[in-house]
Amino acid sequence: MSSNTEIQWKGYAVHDTKLWDQFKVTDFEPKGMEDKDIDIKIEYCGVCGSDMHTITGGWGEVKLPLIAGHEIAGHVVRVGAKVTEFKVGDRVGVGAQVGSCYDCQRCKNGAENYCHKVIHTYNSIYPDGTVSQGGYATAIRANELFVFHIPDALPLDQAAPMLCAGITTYSPLRTNGAGPGKSVGVIGIGGLGHYALQFAKAMKSDKVVAFSHSENKKADALALGATDFVNTGAENWVKEWTDTLDIILCTVDVSQHIPLSDIFATLKVHGRCVMLALPDDALPPIHPFSLMASGVLLGGSHIGSKAEIVEMLDLAAKEGVKSYIEMLPMKEIGKAVQGMKTGKVRYRYVLKADI
Amino acid sequence: MSSNTEIQWKGYAVHDTKLWDQFKVTDFEPKGMEDKDIDIKIEYCGVCGSDMHTITGGWGEVKLPLIAGHEIAGHVVRVGAKVTEFKVGDRVGVGAQVGSCYDCQRCKNGAENYCHKVIHTYNSIYPDGTVSQGGYATAIRANELFVFHIPDALPLDQAAPMLCAGITTYSPLRTNGAGPGKSVGVIGIGGLGHYALQFAKAMKSDKVVAFSHSENKKADALALGATDFVNTGAENWVKEWTDTLDIILCTVDVSQHIPLSDIFATLKVHGRCVMLALPDDALPPIHPFSLMASGVLLGGSHIGSKAEIVEMLDLAAKEGVKSYIEMLPMKEIGKAVQGMKTGKVRYRYVLKADI
Repeated sequence: MSSNTEIQWKGYAVHDTKLWDQFKVTDFEPKGMEDKDIDIKIEYCGVCGSDMHTITGGWGEVKLPLIAGHEIAGHVVRVGAKVTEFKVGDRVGVGAQVGSCYDCQRCKNGAENYCHKVIHTYNSIYPDGTVSQGGYATAIRANELFVFHIPDALPLDQAAPMLCAGITTYSPLRTNGAGPGKSVGVIGIGGLGHYALQFAKAMKSDKVVAFSHSENKKADALALGATDFVNTGAENWVKEWTDTLDIILCTVDVSQHIPLSDIFATLKVHGRCVMLALPDDALPPIHPFSLMASGVLLGGSHIGSKAEIVEMLDLAAKEGVKSYIEMLPMKEIGKAVQGMKTGKVRYRYVLKADI
Repeated sequence: MSSNTEIQWKGYAVHDTKLWDQFKVTDFEPKGMEDKDIDIKIEYCGVCGSDMHTITGGWGEVKLPLIAGHEIAGHVVRVGAKVTEFKVGDRVGVGAQVGSCYDCQRCKNGAENYCHKVIHTYNSIYPDGTVSQGGYATAIRANELFVFHIPDALPLDQAAPMLCAGITTYSPLRTNGAGPGKSVGVIGIGGLGHYALQFAKAMKSDKVVAFSHSENKKADALALGATDFVNTGAENWVKEWTDTLDIILCTVDVSQHIPLSDIFATLKVHGRCVMLALPDDALPPIHPFSLMASGVLLGGSHIGSKAEIVEMLDLAAKEGVKSYIEMLPMKEIGKAVQGMKTGKVRYRYVLKADI
């Protein structure tokens, strides 16, 4: 071990994308320690849809063996010489990004989550050639820009899944102006959606409308802050909700669910739909007419910046945003990814470290 | 003639979408005169890409025989009892819309161009059952909400094509914040693009970047106000222009030209591409990843509101925005639509009334 004799760098790795639910405890070597790096002992790691898309090969090349997981919470066990924000023992988290170029216009403007040289928490290659390995592991090393203090009011297991699923909804809500005077729609009440409802509410949006394809999640949606619940499996819902929303976060694969034109119909003039679901395939065909009818915009979003993550964690602590989680020991990661794949999870798995 | 014995209601109509470049002078009956309606003697009518898409059947059902044309300028010859803004003799124009419901939230908020009951200038059905007929004609009747005073500084033939092509670029520039501090890209330097460059410049945008697939239009683009010209037929242009633009207006059928992912690459974080081209077919497949990489938005836009059109005409008069037109007598409409179809026009045909 090159860097810290106290850490045994091991994780649950997939060795073959065809055997994506079979994990083996595997040693790995972290990137070389730099002055701004922090080593974190992992206590919890959430399971994200991205993990599935990656380990099954759906999103392209996988650098095997790979340890996934990017919703990480734990304690600082070592800090580099120039780390200023953290000290050993701090309660911290890491999300889906562990590095950037630190030097481009985007990094300098506080939009490091859009840096063209983003290093994702796993399956990316560091400048030193190391493949980044994620949070289904004993520990992780990351630049302090991508490490976040967890507020005292948030338990570590609650905070972990906010660092990807949470910020993935918080950032576009913030960017697109959710808050007083705005009506927000959330399509799909799952891992992402259950945060979107809570954050839209915490931001004091006028309306927070939950869209789901059955009545199953109605009670949960209302408990999570929805002012209205729409069953998209029922008839006439599009007509009833036409021209009502300023912002939509879509968390479902629309090819499997609702026609995009129906989603656009619910938007007000110049309303925005941000597509957060990232299926393996392209969106269903879009004709410019469907964007033109109300002058709407279809957008994307990529996690969030440090400033946004800090803001989100503060808001979550202050407004009592909750992660609805099912806890499993990390060795049951195979069960968790199967549960994610089949949509059984309510609403996020969090794994407790056990190696 | 039901309404005005002085007007002979006639126009150049297409009688068969297969014979879309063959026009016959045809009598028609306008909608019944209402208190807010105005009759306008047409002097000029511009030729728009929409005319081609409609008369060829590319955009769907055509109510034959049809008189197209929706870039209309002329003089008021009759006003309804409750018309307040206009009097006989006024120099006026009509664009692509002649009616709405006047009563919905969109109409009441000054977004009547997005009314769900929009009556387009031709090929729409009025509540009284009349099919609307366009400007390749002797005259048109329209509610005063959709009639515009032409500033004295603008000749009628110059103003006519601004009422569709001009406003189609002005409205999204305004909506999406073109002006000081913003860099605007315009893809395709044709009927729409040549206005987009001028209006982006007139709004004092920092940069106005013209994108065209050859060098042919470079001199024109620079004369029209472009600060930069990019030949998208050359190599490496995407790399050079990555992360540089706040707003793009795309006026070309992207399936024929530039990959959307290349267009998105030129946008800054949260930049917006507004798709103004409306080909018969859907856009090439879009993967959410391509929107996610910079958190960009892809949008549509539909002509403009009365307030925007008035504002545009004032700005055009004040800043000397010019329509680059080729004038033909209206009887040569067949030649004009062929010239549009083959892309020969520089940059807009305007027809002079001759029936």
